[in-house]
Formats: sequence, C-alpha cells, structure tokens
Amino acid sequence: MHVPVNELKFRLEKLHLSMKQEKVGAVYLCRPENVHYFSGFTGSDSHLLVTASEMFLLTDRRYEEEAQQSASCAEMVLWKKNIPETAAEIFRKKRVRAVGFEADMLTQLHFSQFTKALSNARTKDFRQQIATIRLCKTSWELGRIKAALRCAEKSFLELKHVIRCGMTELDIRAELEMRMLKYGAIRPAFETIVAVGKNSSLPHAHAGKVKVRQGLPILIDFGACVDGYNSDLTRVLFLGSMPKFWHEQMRRVLQAQSAGLDALKAGCAVCDADNAARKVFEQYKCVQNYSHSLGHGLGLMVHEAPGVSYKSSTVLEEGMVVTCEPGLYYPGKGGIRIEDMVVVSRRGASVLSRLDKDEKSAVLSL
Amino acid sequence: MHVPVNELKFRLEKLHLSMKQEKVGAVYLCRPENVHYFSGFTGSDSHLLVTASEMFLLTDRRYEEEAQQSASCAEMVLWKKNIPETAAEIFRKKRVRAVGFEADMLTQLHFSQFTKALSNARTKDFRQQIATIRLCKTSWELGRIKAALRCAEKSFLELKHVIRCGMTELDIRAELEMRMLKYGAIRPAFETIVAVGKNSSLPHAHAGKVKVRQGLPILIDFGACVDGYNSDLTRVLFLGSMPKFWHEQMRRVLQAQSAGLDALKAGCAVCDADNAARKVFEQYKCVQNYSHSLGHGLGLMVHEAPGVSYKSSTVLEEGMVVTCEPGLYYPGKGGIRIEDMVVVSRRGASVLSRLDKDEKSAVLSL
Repeated sequence: MHVPVNELKFRLEKLHLSMKQEKVGAVYLCRPENVHYFSGFTGSDSHLLVTASEMFLLTDRRYEEEAQQSASCAEMVLWKKNIPETAAEIFRKKRVRAVGFEADMLTQLHFSQFTKALSNARTKDFRQQIATIRLCKTSWELGRIKAALRCAEKSFLELKHVIRCGMTELDIRAELEMRMLKYGAIRPAFETIVAVGKNSSLPHAHAGKVKVRQGLPILIDFGACVDGYNSDLTRVLFLGSMPKFWHEQMRRVLQAQSAGLDALKAGCAVCDADNAARKVFEQYKCVQNYSHSLGHGLGLMVHEAPGVSYKSSTVLEEGMVVTCEPGLYYPGKGGIRIEDMVVVSRRGASVLSRLDKDEKSAVLSL
Repeated sequence: MHVPVNELKFRLEKLHLSMKQEKVGAVYLCRPENVHYFSGFTGSDSHLLVTASEMFLLTDRRYEEEAQQSASCAEMVLWKKNIPETAAEIFRKKRVRAVGFEADMLTQLHFSQFTKALSNARTKDFRQQIATIRLCKTSWELGRIKAALRCAEKSFLELKHVIRCGMTELDIRAELEMRMLKYGAIRPAFETIVAVGKNSSLPHAHAGKVKVRQGLPILIDFGACVDGYNSDLTRVLFLGSMPKFWHEQMRRVLQAQSAGLDALKAGCAVCDADNAARKVFEQYKCVQNYSHSLGHGLGLMVHEAPGVSYKSSTVLEEGMVVTCEPGLYYPGKGGIRIEDMVVVSRRGASVLSRLDKDEKSAVLSL
C-alpha cells in the first residue's frame, strides 16, 4: 500500500519546521526508514534530499519503476559516480549553506565523499530531529501497525493448532514465519524467537533443535512487517499443563504488565511505567530476575524512540506506540515474558494487540 | 557450528601480514561478517579490535554467554559509554599509532567518537584489505557454502511438488522459506524472489499476489544462510508446459551460462567471463535484453568481491566462489535467469550447485 499524499505532506511540513528551527536549508537522508517516511519510496539503496521547496530521490536503474510508483512526489535522479557526490552537486547548485544528516547512519566513506564535494556548506547531525518527528503516529500509521498486528495474531492462533510434542524450536519458527508471509507480511519483523525450556531464560535466544515437551515453557517472541510497519508480541505456551512454578511466574508477569500499562499515560514519564512494573516484582522479591526494560517504541523500525526504561525521563505523548513486555528469567530453568503493543492517549494506554493472555489460552492440548 | 581454531588462526595470520604491509598496528572492525570472520563470534552489535598480539571483542551483557562460546579466542570487554570510546581507550593503552578501519561500515557518529578519543593515532581505510583477505575460500568455508546450497536445493526440490495452479508468489515464497528454516538455515540468505509472468522481467521483483498459471514463467531466486554462509540460486519453472518462446530463451540463457562457466578459470579476468556470455546473446541479437552482469562473489555476504562484470579486470584466483547467472528480460512479458554457484580452480570453474536445469526439470505437471 502506498503512503497517501496528505500523509506525506503532513510529514514534510514537520520536517520543514524543524529545518527552519535548526537553521539548515536542506536535509540529506540515507536510512531506508527515513527515506520511506518522507517520500513513500519502497525500494532500497537510495538516498533522499529535502530542501525548503524540493525533494530529490537519488536512486539507480534497478529502482526506476519502483520509484515512479511509490515516490512520485520526489524528483528522481539517477546517480552517477557515487550517491554522496551527486547529492553534494545538487546542494551546490541550490546554494545550500547548511545540511542536516544522519550521523548514526551515513558511513564515514559517504560522509567524506559528501563533505568533500559540498565544499563550503556546513553539516549538522539531524538524527534526533528526525526521530522526534517520527515519535507520534498518525491515525493512518496506526492503521498500518494494526494490520501488522492482525497478521501476526492470525498466524499465531493457527500455530497453536500445529504445535505438537517433539517439534523443534526451528520447526515452530518455520511454521509461524510461513503463515505471516502468507497473510500479507513482506517479511517477519525480526528473527522469530522460539525458546523452549531453559532457553527461554535468554531474552535473545536463537531458535534451534530443542524439542517441545510437556511442562516446558515455549516462549515465542514474534512480529510481522506489513507495508513497512512492524508488530512485536510475546506469548509463552505450555503443552498439556502449566507447572505450578510457571503458573506463579506468569501471574506475577501479568500483574507487572498491568501495572506498566496503567502508567503508560500521556504526560507521564516512561521511567514511571518501568518502575511501576518493577515495584510488582519487588513485592514478590524477584526483581533481580527482571533483566531488561519495560519496552520500546516501534513503527517503521522494530526498535525506535522512545525507550521505556527506568533510566529515561522522556515524557509520553499521545500517539506514541510502545511495547509493554515485562519478564522474569531463571537461568538454567527458563523464563516468562508477556509482550503487548499500546498506543499512548490522554486517557491512558490503549492496548492494540488482541491475543488472549489468560492461563487457559497458554495451555495447548497434548 | 563454531569456526575451528586452526581456521581462525589462518585468517588472523593473513590479517597480521596485511597490517604489517600497510604499517598499521591495529585494526578496528564493526561489520558483523568481518567480526565473525576473524573471531568466530555469532552475535551482533559487537566490534572487534585486533593488534599484532591480541584480540578484543567489545560487546554487552546480552551477548556475554554467546561470546564465551563462539569467540573464545578473543578477550571479551563489556563496553561502557559507547563502543568507539572503549575501543580508542584500549588502543591508547597499547600505544597504537595507526588503526585500520572499515570506512564503508563505520558510521560518521562512531568514527568521530573514535577519532576524538584516539587523540594522536592516525586512521586508515582498511576495507579493501579485508575484502582481499576474504576473497579466496578455504576448504572449511567451501564445506559451509555447500551446506547452504544443499539446504536450499532440498527445499526447492520439495517445493516443486507443492506448487499448484492458483498459488500466489507470496504463497510459494512462504513454502520455500519455511522449508529452508526447517532444513537448517538460520535465515533465508535474502528476500526470496518469486516472480510470475511479466514480473519475472524485473531482476529485483518482490513476491506479491500474482497467481501462477499454465504457460507463465515462475522465476525463483533463492538461497539459505547456514552457519553464516550463503547460497544463491535461480531457476524458472512452468506449470504444464513451456511455451515455445520461453523454450528458446531458456536455451539461449543456458548456452550463455555454459560459455560463462567455461571462462571462469583461475588466471583469467572476470570481464572475459561476462563477455563470453554476452557474445552468445549478441549472436542471437538479444544482448539488449541482458541487463545486469554475470555474477558476484559470495560467502559470509550474499554480495561480496569479486563482482563478475564486463567492467572489471579482476583476475580470478583459485578458491574464489562466484555466481554465474545470465538472464534475458522482456518488459511486459517476463524473463528467464539461471543461476548457479561455482568455485574457481586452476582447471576451470567447478559447479557447486546440483539442481537440474534441463527443460524436463523446469516443467511441473498440472
């Protein structure tokens, strides 16, 4: 689905305002998600130039057709020797004096080619300004994020009927990713984590050859990328029955998540939400088993601003989309994490995901 | 599978020799494939420092266990404020005067943090030297590449029994990628291209909702990543029967590929191989429908040196692994591409892939 023209116009207005405030006459973008955000372009290996009145997409022959279709608002330029030199030439012709760029994305090679060809103009790191513009999602973006959620959820619900004793983590990952592709994902949002038994205590486990069997937690952290927007969810399943120990951990995690969700309100600081979840674990004397932060922003990237950590005092705003994913991890034994996605509003966090999380929904019949 | 110690030792010796020749006392690596190549580390978000006598892996708590298991030859350092500063501190303590780095990978932000903290030492772009070291594959690496090929081939042979009239490009991609994951891939080597009918004339088509039906080319460009090493293959299938026009194009492409394969010999220039394929198409007056170059090197990256193009005079060496993938594209109608992987030897190209490519194998029963 192409980005609507009025959506692009709205984004560009915010960028122009930021350029004016920071006194840069132009911006040079190379992060694919930023190129897409401001131009709608769906291909890769292409850079975007934005001035106060014009927009140029620097691409090559492979993407000519794709650029015409998805980024018609930008003037297409086929670059010659290398992209940064072509970019600098355009800026020179337009007599640009200061250019914003993404210091965390442009390589040193491209930066040196760019500044050399730019001669007199100065450069300014513009990554924070761009991240700020992308922070709050429009209703159109929320629609895309919901589509990415529905795709992942539909696939997961089907997967629950497929999991059998003896299947490996890799088998389960393959079955889930296949369904997400069939139901409209352009790719999985990230490498699906399927971690069985003690592997589930590693927050970044890779799916491997461990087999599922009765009583072991099966932690599945997954998401779909639909039209460039991502979803990110975690559920823990059990075959046959849920052992008492895990039942207790699940209850604590759900209680911590609920406390976190209540604190994800516009006007509140993100650290308060993380601390709200942390307090629940402190009450159960297990906060040392909660080894990461409560969540992260997501949209065109799976991890983007704002981070929802006890270290950050970022104030939540209406339209921010974040995950809420407390977890408890017992090395050598396993772990429980429950992850949902919410959009922040004045009235509180509105949960976007629809998967059940009660005990009944976590236990699969043998 | 972890990289064997003698393999790592051999690679490090080549790096030390190159450092001596270029008069740099240390190398700072951040490209994940290079970090893996010299240390064996399987995680991400980590950088590698190599001096004449030591090796340091800069990582964070998430990868502590993975680093101990996969990169035991490197001393693990958990970075604090940011990776480049920690790297510069280590180099300062070791009194390094010149550091090689990857200008095409290190971001401008990291480069400026690094050089600022490095104070007096000079930096040198080392990307060509690293690429040169990785050019020729050892027999152990060839084993990994063959494993990546066998995984992709096994999945493709099964897929051929699954394709039915009415399936979409996305369905076929999902079925193929699922099988590669089940048969040992850590991920597909790249977004699998499944292009039906006129879509097959776009060399970088995205799989979509177009359905397969009798007489249309079904171009499938796919590969698996196994233990970090990649495979890359292309076949074109037809349901029921192959129309005369496509039969003729297929014959030409196979003839061009055969000419290319004959010219991929150690001691010969890559341009000669591309030109050999080109000549076949010239003879049939269709060279204008051949819009890309003959192939590319691959290994830890899907595209790496050497490029096999008529513009390059790189001389082929024993142990280089490249693709041979001529194609003919007719916009609005479709295209044919046949891609195999070879290892260059003194006696000529040795084809690593095992999939049939005769007409019989390209036609699926309805």
